[in-house]
Amino acid sequence: MSQKQTKANFMSDNAAGATPKVMAALQDANVGKAPAYGNDTWTERATGAIRDVLEAPNAEVLLTATGTAANALALATITPPYGAIYCHPQAHINSDECGAPEFYTSGAKLVLVEGEHGKIKPEDLNALLEEGGRGVHHVKPATVSLSQSTEAGTVYSVDEVRAIADVAHAHGLKLHMDGARFANALIATGASPCELSWKAGVDILSFGLSKNGGLSAEAVVQFNPVPMEAGKAKGGAKGDVTDLEFRRKRAGHLVSKMRFIAAQWIGALDGGDWLKTASHANARAAELADGLTSLKAAELMHPVEANEVFVRLASSIADQLEADGFGFYRWQNTPAGVTLRLVTAFDTTEDETAEFLDAVRRHLG
Amino acid sequence: MSQKQTKANFMSDNAAGATPKVMAALQDANVGKAPAYGNDTWTERATGAIRDVLEAPNAEVLLTATGTAANALALATITPPYGAIYCHPQAHINSDECGAPEFYTSGAKLVLVEGEHGKIKPEDLNALLEEGGRGVHHVKPATVSLSQSTEAGTVYSVDEVRAIADVAHAHGLKLHMDGARFANALIATGASPCELSWKAGVDILSFGLSKNGGLSAEAVVQFNPVPMEAGKAKGGAKGDVTDLEFRRKRAGHLVSKMRFIAAQWIGALDGGDWLKTASHANARAAELADGLTSLKAAELMHPVEANEVFVRLASSIADQLEADGFGFYRWQNTPAGVTLRLVTAFDTTEDETAEFLDAVRRHLG
Amino acid sequence: MSQKQTKANFMSDNAAGATPKVMAALQDANVGKAPAYGNDTWTERATGAIRDVLEAPNAEVLLTATGTAANALALATITPPYGAIYCHPQAHINSDECGAPEFYTSGAKLVLVEGEHGKIKPEDLNALLEEGGRGVHHVKPATVSLSQSTEAGTVYSVDEVRAIADVAHAHGLKLHMDGARFANALIATGASPCELSWKAGVDILSFGLSKNGGLSAEAVVQFNPVPMEAGKAKGGAKGDVTDLEFRRKRAGHLVSKMRFIAAQWIGALDGGDWLKTASHANARAAELADGLTSLKAAELMHPVEANEVFVRLASSIADQLEADGFGFYRWQNTPAGVTLRLVTAFDTTEDETAEFLDAVRRHLG
Amino acid sequence: MSQKQTKANFMSDNAAGATPKVMAALQDANVGKAPAYGNDTWTERATGAIRDVLEAPNAEVLLTATGTAANALALATITPPYGAIYCHPQAHINSDECGAPEFYTSGAKLVLVEGEHGKIKPEDLNALLEEGGRGVHHVKPATVSLSQSTEAGTVYSVDEVRAIADVAHAHGLKLHMDGARFANALIATGASPCELSWKAGVDILSFGLSKNGGLSAEAVVQFNPVPMEAGKAKGGAKGDVTDLEFRRKRAGHLVSKMRFIAAQWIGALDGGDWLKTASHANARAAELADGLTSLKAAELMHPVEANEVFVRLASSIADQLEADGFGFYRWQNTPAGVTLRLVTAFDTTEDETAEFLDAVRRHLG
Repeated sequence: MSQKQTKANFMSDNAAGATPKVMAALQDANVGKAPAYGNDTWTERATGAIRDVLEAPNAEVLLTATGTAANALALATITPPYGAIYCHPQAHINSDECGAPEFYTSGAKLVLVEGEHGKIKPEDLNALLEEGGRGVHHVKPATVSLSQSTEAGTVYSVDEVRAIADVAHAHGLKLHMDGARFANALIATGASPCELSWKAGVDILSFGLSKNGGLSAEAVVQFNPVPMEAGKAKGGAKGDVTDLEFRRKRAGHLVSKMRFIAAQWIGALDGGDWLKTASHANARAAELADGLTSLKAAELMHPVEANEVFVRLASSIADQLEADGFGFYRWQNTPAGVTLRLVTAFDTTEDETAEFLDAVRRHLG
Repeated sequence: MSQKQTKANFMSDNAAGATPKVMAALQDANVGKAPAYGNDTWTERATGAIRDVLEAPNAEVLLTATGTAANALALATITPPYGAIYCHPQAHINSDECGAPEFYTSGAKLVLVEGEHGKIKPEDLNALLEEGGRGVHHVKPATVSLSQSTEAGTVYSVDEVRAIADVAHAHGLKLHMDGARFANALIATGASPCELSWKAGVDILSFGLSKNGGLSAEAVVQFNPVPMEAGKAKGGAKGDVTDLEFRRKRAGHLVSKMRFIAAQWIGALDGGDWLKTASHANARAAELADGLTSLKAAELMHPVEANEVFVRLASSIADQLEADGFGFYRWQNTPAGVTLRLVTAFDTTEDETAEFLDAVRRHLG
Repeated sequence: MSQKQTKANFMSDNAAGATPKVMAALQDANVGKAPAYGNDTWTERATGAIRDVLEAPNAEVLLTATGTAANALALATITPPYGAIYCHPQAHINSDECGAPEFYTSGAKLVLVEGEHGKIKPEDLNALLEEGGRGVHHVKPATVSLSQSTEAGTVYSVDEVRAIADVAHAHGLKLHMDGARFANALIATGASPCELSWKAGVDILSFGLSKNGGLSAEAVVQFNPVPMEAGKAKGGAKGDVTDLEFRRKRAGHLVSKMRFIAAQWIGALDGGDWLKTASHANARAAELADGLTSLKAAELMHPVEANEVFVRLASSIADQLEADGFGFYRWQNTPAGVTLRLVTAFDTTEDETAEFLDAVRRHLG
Repeated sequence: MSQKQTKANFMSDNAAGATPKVMAALQDANVGKAPAYGNDTWTERATGAIRDVLEAPNAEVLLTATGTAANALALATITPPYGAIYCHPQAHINSDECGAPEFYTSGAKLVLVEGEHGKIKPEDLNALLEEGGRGVHHVKPATVSLSQSTEAGTVYSVDEVRAIADVAHAHGLKLHMDGARFANALIATGASPCELSWKAGVDILSFGLSKNGGLSAEAVVQFNPVPMEAGKAKGGAKGDVTDLEFRRKRAGHLVSKMRFIAAQWIGALDGGDWLKTASHANARAAELADGLTSLKAAELMHPVEANEVFVRLASSIADQLEADGFGFYRWQNTPAGVTLRLVTAFDTTEDETAEFLDAVRRHLG
């Protein structure tokens, strides 16, 4: 994890900085005073713009600084402490968040649903749910969570999302989408944001910007917010405070100078820049995939549909690429070779992908 | 806390054993096999009998082994993790349960409402709730909890309960009653069980038996159970599983051989024995109060309305009573003397109260 | 789950009542007053007797009313909220406690280790732990939990426990044993209580009595209790209060009339009755296994080593047995037939096992 | 809370934007790729700089985005779930964080210690702790938390902090300092950072930057980090992962592009800019205090020692000031008038304070 890579760095889309539009918007927002805790006009504009993009005028939109917070808050608002959350074993919520969903839900259980290429199949989910509950002895089926695009760099089609949503809803569960790479999935599927979310049955979406050129900005979008019943919590200008808002606050995720989270969204959504950056990243991954496919000694482990490439090479090749100064994760070591994860971002250049492919070719001899 | 008291022991109603009817019912239930986890006929009979006694045919009734469990489960089912529970500082849930409400609710906050003689006044509660919320910055007013009888040995009248319930409901809060000594309060007020609970506005009741001659038996009674919406959790013969049932199970309070908790209730409720034992205990406390009132050097700190007496005596008198072998708690030491807590139970005899009063008189000279 | 079985009931060892010795001890304890909350001499005697039986004079012993409470408390005291608990998928803590471990630990994650016949293999555990952590991104390996006997009715030998303990300890994890059927495992292995627990590397034991003829009595035994450092919590006669004691109290599991939990242990341990009852139950299971083994059309799914039998029969046979009035669980339906779970208890008779075997033979034709 | 104030805005130091040095540092950090999740050189530099400023080379320093997160993480790492945290009723952790400490600690209880001008007195704390515990029945005294500067705009002197630390440590408790306005307190006391923290007995510090010209940057500083014992969690380049790090991650506060939090600290600490901005804010508050003191009809409710002024005026005056377009909080309404809270920040100008004082004088007639 040296910072001295002299060559292309494919470690993560989190290793990239922020886009020029995001940085400019931060500067724009740094003018004078603004009400703290999200009661400012930037936040109003950003949440409005997110609703517009999703064609969801009644959705509740909350901004957060991290994707783990967005996921954990989303899950906690739809899952009781004794609930079961069905997800793929590789799901970020299961493998990479150190138990954040368990913490935020006060102890719900993640039930793992295996599936090829990081994806859950509706029939497998259905079989599990049809097995029936164990009554009070086991956790209550409550939530299904999909990653879009997945941790394997693949994408659920609109039909696939809808099929899973149908299974979930038929059994009384809600559907969460971890959209840390939602933009990449939109590019991959060609679907519009609403087609790939609420129209396909998604109840609550973690909408990511950080991995797509944000500095630190995410959103939780609840498409059919439930009105609060018990208690009257007056929220000043904002009216009644929602369950999500209370949970965000007590989790320490109500950033005081919220205008700076909002500004990032405003900059990214302006002129559709967020889709251009995702499209750019996907294109670079496709270049890597095309180049590697043409090489006998390299095997793609998953279809490359978004901005991640999983390729298996001989261990010696991986060593040489590392020595060259390329950055990537060694995802898995097997006797058949080492699988590298290559992630592209808004700032990955065609020169970089070409340089990497050249190096692989050269090392393969 | 020696067990060698040779004289009357007024330490606690928890220091008493179980009544003959409770012990006999345990024996009766120990016949053959019975379905575990509350799916047995004893449990069905006991919960039915509790509904009958409360004239609440639709109430949800769950049996537990301890009062702390009953209270914490009741609070957790009506209070969100970000909720505020209003109670008296001396409330058992605040002072004697080591944070059980905070644990079960996943972190709700107890907001303390001072008041004379262990009781909250409706106007004080109202003033607090009228102050208004702090929006998302402070916990959300959710629940009011009363102890009946109180930790000061006093009792809320039906009108007092109703006045507090009205304030709570007017602000969207629910009312919990910690009825660890509910029977004692019924005797004190002359009210019927339904008059002192749901007809007065109580939403959920911890109905105690352990302090009233049970071995280890309590119940949570939710008068207007909310149907579960999300998820389908099949509960076999019992149909859908409720929020309370899930919470009880994951707290480890679904006793496997539930028939033995149920049997205690059946024995106690049979023939109104539970009211006779409470009446007996209250009468003994009244004897103590009457006797002490006639002594100049003894001061009752609270009206004696149920089965607890708080009396202030010179420290030297307390020492002599202890040396005699009487059992009691030293509740509070002040320059003006030491306050003793004397608790009577179903098995406290008239001889014992007389013996104690004689000793006090003798030591006072 | 009808209570009208006219024939032998093999539903569960929880469906049995309490032994005569347990019931007699309850009566013996119901004499006069005793300090509440475990500060009584019965509790002192019971915990002392448990230490004696385990040859663990320095162990911390806490009594509880349920096995789920014992397990969850044991796990919470050795597992941080961000910890991973390794267990078999069929482990009671994973499958039958509705998320109690997650609740008590404030969100730890159960990581499942598959294995034949309900048992984890040390090499599989080692492979998982050798994979290495994911640093801060994944939960921290903290605890291994074994069931003894297992949910498949099998038993870990002393050597098998020690091998797993060695793997756990070598990686810095602690070993919990869910001994809900510890007595049955002792009979099966012929080991002494200390050989099968702390001498084999068990750090904390849930020691069960309820399934072995108790009414409602379990114990948590921590073999090497850690002294409390921060804060001074004076516990009266008992000195400093331990982490386990605080956790038990706030979970509502410090039963007020603790003498009645203690009495059950005193009755059961007296004269080794607890081993006789377990031996009896195991013998009945062995009779069932022997009889079924001799039948071509019945297949035992797991070795029968304790008091549970899993046998696969044609579905029509199961239906006929049910119609006869026998009690059992239908564990799993497969095209190859239905697997029945038969559990024997202290009160299962030789006539009952013979009657059942006759019926199976008759139905098989 | 309109954003159209045409006059000085004293609502909050959170209403200010970020300083030029902070914004410049953000730009500087937005260069190329950097390892995510705090494994970058900016984070290394920032945490090193914080250690240098505090003269605490062995301290553990974790960056977070919000002060509530810093407080809640700090408290959770030193307080067990059954712990008591002693603090002033007005403490931010009690009044303004919606139960975040309860959430992060899994249910600890805040025990309130009253005191004039937002400050706890050591003798009051001592009296409470000397009362003694209630054994297992009440939460365990674990932590004392002070705000520096306080929510009343006052400051604890070095000696006052040390006196409270001594009481805490003598009873086995740890001392947390909520230093959201630590810089303002340093200016007020003239003490060095180490004198006002670890040398005075502070065990863990929430070190704030957001209210002092940061965009969104705080730090938790644990002065005597406890080495992790159980489990081996390999943290790659960073070695073993600490309790605080695990807690931060699962709370969703490990910001992926951490370099941008780090950069804010680097910019602010560079050349002592953070002390200049705090000094500036304090000076503006002093101007307000001086001006208001000279007016008969205005009463300062607390000594003005940092950057907050609490002044009581007639309600009509407050209305006029609001109509003028000045921004402030109406802190409390009483028959004697309304108390305004005025907060100054790095960007408050002398013109603004003068303008406000002029307006007050004019309205007072």
